Amino acid sequence: MKLSVYAVPDSVADKAFKDKIVIVIDVLRATTTIITPLANGCKEVIPAVEIEEVITMSKNYEKDSFLLCGERNIQPIDGFHLSNSPLEYTAERVSGKTVLLTTTNGTRAIRRAVDAKEVLVCSLINVDAIADHLASQDCDAVFICAGTDGKFSMDDVVTAGAVISKLNDSVENLELDDLAVVAMSMYQSSADDLHGLLKHSVHYKRMMEYGLADDINYCLTLNAASIVAVYKDGVIKPLEKIIM
Amino acid sequence: MKLSVYAVPDSVADKAFKDKIVIVIDVLRATTTIITPLANGCKEVIPAVEIEEVITMSKNYEKDSFLLCGERNIQPIDGFHLSNSPLEYTAERVSGKTVLLTTTNGTRAIRRAVDAKEVLVCSLINVDAIADHLASQDCDAVFICAGTDGKFSMDDVVTAGAVISKLNDSVENLELDDLAVVAMSMYQSSADDLHGLLKHSVHYKRMMEYGLADDINYCLTLNAASIVAVYKDGVIKPLEKIIM
Repeated sequence: MKLSVYAVPDSVADKAFKDKIVIVIDVLRATTTIITPLANGCKEVIPAVEIEEVITMSKNYEKDSFLLCGERNIQPIDGFHLSNSPLEYTAERVSGKTVLLTTTNGTRAIRRAVDAKEVLVCSLINVDAIADHLASQDCDAVFICAGTDGKFSMDDVVTAGAVISKLNDSVENLELDDLAVVAMSMYQSSADDLHGLLKHSVHYKRMMEYGLADDINYCLTLNAASIVAVYKDGVIKPLEKIIM
Repeated sequence: MKLSVYAVPDSVADKAFKDKIVIVIDVLRATTTIITPLANGCKEVIPAVEIEEVITMSKNYEKDSFLLCGERNIQPIDGFHLSNSPLEYTAERVSGKTVLLTTTNGTRAIRRAVDAKEVLVCSLINVDAIADHLASQDCDAVFICAGTDGKFSMDDVVTAGAVISKLNDSVENLELDDLAVVAMSMYQSSADDLHGLLKHSVHYKRMMEYGLADDINYCLTLNAASIVAVYKDGVIKPLEKIIM
């Protein structure tokens, strides 16, 4: 099994996806915010790039059957039900609903993966679920990190490293590209203190300045949600609902 | 002083260069092969992307005043004087001559940096010289790694890390972007055994398959050449010849 890691979506050649599983990571906070409502019983999450797109989509849904969600530059959007804080996505709020979510980097990364065999949504909160699923598949995998401001972002790369490290425990003869090796090494040397590693990251520091320490704490909670989130035909659902 | 590292030239936004020093790195082997003849007394190195470009340029030079040099896919080019092996660039061969060099990734990375305040050519063999020069300048710096096959390449990133680590000893309040932090950490945890780190790298493994262990050993020799190589107006010379 060959594993490749891309630090930013723009560095990915489109041809890289064919016959591969793509794992999209935007751990602070988009992919964590996608996985959390799925774990808390929402019907589905529909990611979008533009605010207008989300509002237009919402017109196809019955009142109270959807939530308008998202952020711009870390801030909530006026008139939306929920921001991009995963802590807001409680079972009480999301159960049975369609989450229409607009985020900047995360959504772009997900849409970059259209031709893949399967597209998974990954964060630190579902590392083991993703790794176990990959271990059960006999195909190559590509991790696409959302990055921050179009650049390498430690939080996303170390998340890829966490999945690769877990896979490495159960799958023999993994073939890692250079960034996969670095990602695994970053994770393994910091697994006991992810905050200690990530406090040097631009994205982490920016979120701390915005007073989002609680969000960071949650986003860095390994395996808080044992769910394999799958993006298919524009919609993200738990794997078992896709298979059904 | 702000330091940024880009793992591949294509991920660099052009605007990133203005008023900054750009440090280009393609340690296996282009930038090592550029620095070596400069340290051994060649007149100048002129990098080019295409083989035809080098041949056309050579027509402007007197016989025996230039060397046609370069590689395609790690292999020597038919009819050229020297390959991309830095070990071929002895003082006897290069003294006083113009080195017309075509390499794939390295040249592209150098040309990407046209708008910078200054463009330096860096490798593990001139880490301290580059770091000392940067420490003497009061401006931000951007490391552009050539990468391998358009992807993150450990050898280049750890070289950036070596320079940053050295700078960090002498300059207070360095502001590092995420990849600069990772690069420095990679270097510091492997400084005593760069081969141990890089043997997991795709590029290193490929060169070993081509029987280029001697080249690798030389390319990984820290500070074998204490020279600051500067690219200006299409030509690379030692800093002292640029200032003169």
